[in-house]
Amino acid sequence: MQTKKFLLSEQDIPRAWYNVVADMAVKPHPMIHPVTHEPIKAEDLYPLFSKAASDQELNTTDAFIEIPEPVRELYRIWRPTPLVRAEALERALDTPAHIYFKNESVSPVGSHKLNSAIAQAYYCKQEGVTNITTETGAGQWGAALSMAAKHFGLELAVYMVKVSYEQKPYRRSIMQTYGAEVISSPSMSTKAGRKIITDHPNYSGSLGTAISEAVELAMSTPNCKYVLGSVLNHVALHQTVIGLEAEKQMEMAGEMPDVVVACFGGGSNFSGLAFPFLRHNLKNGANIQFIAAEPASCPKLTRGEFQYDFGDEAGYTPLIPMYTLGHKFTPANIHAGGLRYHGGGAIVSQLRHDGLIDAVDIPQLETFEAATLFARTEGIIPAPESSHAIAATIREALKAREEGRKKVILFNLSGHGLIDMTAYDRYFSNDLTNYRVTDEDIARTTAGLEQIL
Amino acid sequence: MQTKKFLLSEQDIPRAWYNVVADMAVKPHPMIHPVTHEPIKAEDLYPLFSKAASDQELNTTDAFIEIPEPVRELYRIWRPTPLVRAEALERALDTPAHIYFKNESVSPVGSHKLNSAIAQAYYCKQEGVTNITTETGAGQWGAALSMAAKHFGLELAVYMVKVSYEQKPYRRSIMQTYGAEVISSPSMSTKAGRKIITDHPNYSGSLGTAISEAVELAMSTPNCKYVLGSVLNHVALHQTVIGLEAEKQMEMAGEMPDVVVACFGGGSNFSGLAFPFLRHNLKNGANIQFIAAEPASCPKLTRGEFQYDFGDEAGYTPLIPMYTLGHKFTPANIHAGGLRYHGGGAIVSQLRHDGLIDAVDIPQLETFEAATLFARTEGIIPAPESSHAIAATIREALKAREEGRKKVILFNLSGHGLIDMTAYDRYFSNDLTNYRVTDEDIARTTAGLEQIL
Repeated sequence: MQTKKFLLSEQDIPRAWYNVVADMAVKPHPMIHPVTHEPIKAEDLYPLFSKAASDQELNTTDAFIEIPEPVRELYRIWRPTPLVRAEALERALDTPAHIYFKNESVSPVGSHKLNSAIAQAYYCKQEGVTNITTETGAGQWGAALSMAAKHFGLELAVYMVKVSYEQKPYRRSIMQTYGAEVISSPSMSTKAGRKIITDHPNYSGSLGTAISEAVELAMSTPNCKYVLGSVLNHVALHQTVIGLEAEKQMEMAGEMPDVVVACFGGGSNFSGLAFPFLRHNLKNGANIQFIAAEPASCPKLTRGEFQYDFGDEAGYTPLIPMYTLGHKFTPANIHAGGLRYHGGGAIVSQLRHDGLIDAVDIPQLETFEAATLFARTEGIIPAPESSHAIAATIREALKAREEGRKKVILFNLSGHGLIDMTAYDRYFSNDLTNYRVTDEDIARTTAGLEQIL
Repeated sequence: MQTKKFLLSEQDIPRAWYNVVADMAVKPHPMIHPVTHEPIKAEDLYPLFSKAASDQELNTTDAFIEIPEPVRELYRIWRPTPLVRAEALERALDTPAHIYFKNESVSPVGSHKLNSAIAQAYYCKQEGVTNITTETGAGQWGAALSMAAKHFGLELAVYMVKVSYEQKPYRRSIMQTYGAEVISSPSMSTKAGRKIITDHPNYSGSLGTAISEAVELAMSTPNCKYVLGSVLNHVALHQTVIGLEAEKQMEMAGEMPDVVVACFGGGSNFSGLAFPFLRHNLKNGANIQFIAAEPASCPKLTRGEFQYDFGDEAGYTPLIPMYTLGHKFTPANIHAGGLRYHGGGAIVSQLRHDGLIDAVDIPQLETFEAATLFARTEGIIPAPESSHAIAATIREALKAREEGRKKVILFNLSGHGLIDMTAYDRYFSNDLTNYRVTDEDIARTTAGLEQIL
């Protein structure tokens, strides 16, 4: 556990987020209106999201967007987060690689999700919104938004994916402690929920369905907006505080990463860490490798189709140009609930399509093996989601050992696993299995969607 | 949630612990050998504890004891911890008081317990010990020692109080993830455990019994030492890093506390925060008030007897001069499992006897009400133990409002409650009650012990 920690002062909390789209030579295709089939304009998004978030969503020109001072003020509760050199893990792997991790688990809710929750809740409050809705998978996002909503005096309803609602009661209690209402999804409270419950009585829920329910409630409730925790461009934008801090910290460490790794669900923590480093490739001809670590049970970037698809199961959202497993895809009940999402989002998918980032898919058992090694060397029990990044990092570190070359790897510890101990319990009891999606499944759920060229 | 945070750099991690006994005009009475009834010498403790810890236990002359460099190195994983001005809580209470808290919840195991776990595991390793045992109540101490033991390559067996073992399965899983063996106490693995199971088949365990079991295992196992997480002088010593850092941070804030508050179980976090500030009273004629916040169900400092008593239920340990409810006292099953201990330890008890510190006892429901307010204002969900400190702080802040005077209050947030969400669930479901010990109960369990004058 001997660690080198690189700490910034509060003055180093970024003053602007980084909007990678401005620096992309090939921009993502536009989102498409689900009814008119025209490219989405900001005004089309205003009924659903705050105006500020809608404008950020479609901003393709400003590389840096100022962080409002009240948001920066709240970031100070836990930011800047530490960058740590994982020397004990390096020794355990007997690798010449240098492994660094950005520790986003130190936030009061235990994950990076607060970075965007605070920003979005702030914009809603500024615009006079009184009620907000959202979905949550494992509960990390729901917990973060509950805390942010309470701070700004907003009422919040969270649709929590049924399997997580049952597997992760502690996360539900956390949201309630912050004062939010939590509903198991699918629920009877929405048309989308009622339909899928009726069609599939044993359906254990998905992020896609929970999004449909939250969107439907927002659209049918006065003065209510919907807030999303991943996938969209403005969420990725808010998360770039992670990478912007890490950039300075790697400088303190006197190294630049050769490889940047993060787990991948809808892209929020991956984008947050990766984009500021990707800028070095896009602008300065650097050659950093980026690896999105997906679960083998939900491998949209590695095995999905590059198509126009809905962001939600019921088809309420705009059509997003992205790698997808199809919006009707139902992922297996892995414990990394935050990674159970069918699509890769527009920016990451375009980058992937253009060969600017890589992706790997990792079986569940390998992630828990990696997590246990990390806990026993570095002392922090990681979230099942983050454990995908650790597993991918270990693969890279072992490759470096085989090749006998030093390699600098940076990964994002997006959250701690203290509220996921049931999953560890099951792992130690040999009660967990690997789930691998078949090609047939993917072909079935992606059939009939519009391909992107 | 607007907060002012006072951060130190790693260079500010203390280089020595503070031993308050050296500065006490009236020293604590000596511990007594349970067989010879002579005052304990360090050699008497060597079979049980590491030599270093034994020597520290009886050191009454050195005010500062150097922190070994490998221990300081591990402290760097999460120390120095932040000091925070809780302005949102102040506003919610509409109080002229300034409220500060030391945030010990940021450690990787979520509490202050690592401060001593690392030190004690280090000393054991240095002295060639291979196996260690301990007890744990809520599991905070057990989790911390599990992490430290794994780091130093020691095998660890943890006796976990039965009610916590059942109420807090996540903490048990955390210890197992770090590689420790966890046994529900009372167990059949020891004479002490077998006896109490036989006499009281429905006994839900206590820290006193778990200590007996751990001590018995250590004494009957080759090359095995026992490690304690609270009560004893050397544990309090290690915890003073909390107060030593807080002293510097209050200086940064430009204020000195009028009142210092911490929850009280066996004294580890109370001593850790309070002693460095108490030094100002003992040496410089300052007039800081100290408040130990106990549960109403286990009120040794407020309602116990000042007696010689065993540290454990079976009577294996030396007799300790302390306020006690009697070593056969069985506390109610409150959720603040870390506070379910019958005695106050020698130093704190002497200070209390001499009027140098105060104590209050607080009913369970008041602590959860305080915890919820704190979570919704400051954004951090506190451990049930720490919530006693928050409740006592709120009492002081409201008193300040009534008196219309500014008062500076500093409390210790000894741990977060993310692994205690079951307790919050029960609180919100109106499923928790207050437990108040009767005078008859106390008279019965303290009868026959030797009074101290």
